[in-house]
Amino acid sequence: MLERFKVPEADRVYVSVEEMRPATESIFRALGVSDEDAVQATDVLMMNDLRGVESHGVSNMLRVYVAWYRSGRLQAQPEFTIEQETETTATIDGGQGLGLHVAPRAMRMAIEKAREHGMGAVGVHAVGHMGGAGYHAMMAMEHDMIGIAMSSSGSNQMVPTFGAEPRLGTNPMAWAVPAGRMPPFVFDVGTTQVAANKMSLARRVGAKIAPGWVSDEHGTPLMEEGDVPEKYFLLPLGSTRELGSHKGYGLATVVDILCSVLVGLGPGFKAMEPGFHMMALRIDAFTDLAQFKSHMDELLEGLATTPPAPGHERVLYAGQLEAEETELRLAEGIPYHSEVIEWFRGIEAELGLDFSFT
Amino acid sequence: MLERFKVPEADRVYVSVEEMRPATESIFRALGVSDEDAVQATDVLMMNDLRGVESHGVSNMLRVYVAWYRSGRLQAQPEFTIEQETETTATIDGGQGLGLHVAPRAMRMAIEKAREHGMGAVGVHAVGHMGGAGYHAMMAMEHDMIGIAMSSSGSNQMVPTFGAEPRLGTNPMAWAVPAGRMPPFVFDVGTTQVAANKMSLARRVGAKIAPGWVSDEHGTPLMEEGDVPEKYFLLPLGSTRELGSHKGYGLATVVDILCSVLVGLGPGFKAMEPGFHMMALRIDAFTDLAQFKSHMDELLEGLATTPPAPGHERVLYAGQLEAEETELRLAEGIPYHSEVIEWFRGIEAELGLDFSFT
Repeated sequence: MLERFKVPEADRVYVSVEEMRPATESIFRALGVSDEDAVQATDVLMMNDLRGVESHGVSNMLRVYVAWYRSGRLQAQPEFTIEQETETTATIDGGQGLGLHVAPRAMRMAIEKAREHGMGAVGVHAVGHMGGAGYHAMMAMEHDMIGIAMSSSGSNQMVPTFGAEPRLGTNPMAWAVPAGRMPPFVFDVGTTQVAANKMSLARRVGAKIAPGWVSDEHGTPLMEEGDVPEKYFLLPLGSTRELGSHKGYGLATVVDILCSVLVGLGPGFKAMEPGFHMMALRIDAFTDLAQFKSHMDELLEGLATTPPAPGHERVLYAGQLEAEETELRLAEGIPYHSEVIEWFRGIEAELGLDFSFT
Repeated sequence: MLERFKVPEADRVYVSVEEMRPATESIFRALGVSDEDAVQATDVLMMNDLRGVESHGVSNMLRVYVAWYRSGRLQAQPEFTIEQETETTATIDGGQGLGLHVAPRAMRMAIEKAREHGMGAVGVHAVGHMGGAGYHAMMAMEHDMIGIAMSSSGSNQMVPTFGAEPRLGTNPMAWAVPAGRMPPFVFDVGTTQVAANKMSLARRVGAKIAPGWVSDEHGTPLMEEGDVPEKYFLLPLGSTRELGSHKGYGLATVVDILCSVLVGLGPGFKAMEPGFHMMALRIDAFTDLAQFKSHMDELLEGLATTPPAPGHERVLYAGQLEAEETELRLAEGIPYHSEVIEWFRGIEAELGLDFSFT
């Protein structure tokens, strides 16, 4: 994560995952979510917080989920309906359940299909927020598979290259690939220059936004550093056509097609609700598994030991820093903004819970 | 294509595809390639030239292929060996054949598997240049499938974010998705800021390079417009970390994993030869086909009719301009640089052929 997004030191409250996990589970339970789903949804949030993916941990979205359960936008006990199925594919109606537990269930189906047939892909609609694509893609790794997870999202955020009105969401995509002794490759990114909830995080921590992250309200890329503007649209990865924004825009369109059109929702900008696409590829359906893992080690080590360019300390690969951060946070606790802990104390009282935060 | 890459008007020689196709086929045949493979390889080059993808048409690479056949790096009559196979997957030894005809054969296998089982994926190693990923991905469309094609490539071109030495190639990826009445979505891009052979094209037509396209020889991104430098490395899509280069770098790594590690070649920077990954997804294994196509029309039309930002004429989606260019070039001929036509005249004499160019 960029330095500007970290919680300022003075505002940090360290909470161990052992304390935060039952607190979060109890909130889900109090809202009517089943034990199993509460545990699953919390596990997604905890993994994001441990990996340093604050934008998808408890800080930003948990309060939103609470509001959605209360307004009826999310169903606490959703039906999970298989609408269409083949040996390798399925399309699921998620019954308006939260993606944090519906997506893992869909991914498990994709994994089962890949175990039997080599590959599996499952799409989901009528579902709430995925909570980051990385967790779900990573599920495939322990089965010696490559995992892919994507989500379309509220398509009123990203302007197409040259466009003055938004047509796409942040449309994240993740690939997770197991290795041997090296931390796995986990590539989990939005197809915008910057994640939508990184913008609210920037506003909260008072961070500046970099040139090329967003456009003004007319679609013109803002190419100077500055505060988070009142009105803005997200730009595709690449920012401007000369810098390759048509590539970010195209990737976002791929996600819209796989997650929204392919599950029957239609274009994201019309559906205005998320859809998911999860895929698992069994590695030994293509090549020798042990050799693959050893080659992955070689690849990842080769990337991580690339001599750094002037002014840089080292080269990283996707997932490496997150693995290091997990070690650190398991030992030291997760640094939350004090405002987040206040929110927890508030909801604790409101729902009559007892978190026993130290 | 950016204006700077177009052949300058004074240097243009228009040749119809009806003239260029048999000329190119006859060159392949003269080098020992079978009739069928010569026709297939030429079809890839012609489609690229018609779509305006000059970097992967006859101008840049055909002379390189000729040199590779002559040096023995490419086999004119390659074996196509299935090394491993499941219902949905296969890994192919391409016998050092040219990717322009080996990749379509692998893609046809993936399509067959998808027809029977919903999805199919085929990897290839021991193979020459793919000739652009778009053509191969597009093959799936006429079977009402989504096509995906990727190729790892000489991994001495792209520096990782913060890196001073190259570890990855341009590693292109393409997705092709059929629609109804709208031209299909064909997204075909390198994961670098700029394609490697766009740099040689820029040198040939005397075009400037844009800020953020390449780094200097120490890995530092060059952020000013200028001439093509003597020594440079390609930057990942995003250019710099602040502009999201870790995303382009991660995508390039995904391609390296799927195309190089998953086919048994090991890391691209060690293998230093291309590998392919082709995938086909049968649309009606997920959702209703007619509805999908009509939703695709809505999506693509919605993107194309986005109000433009100040200073821009219109918004495009991936594949739209290429479809328009194809119409134009079928009518007017393909504008080649006169130097390319001279090369054709030279090889015509050398191989004792008769192109009958008007």
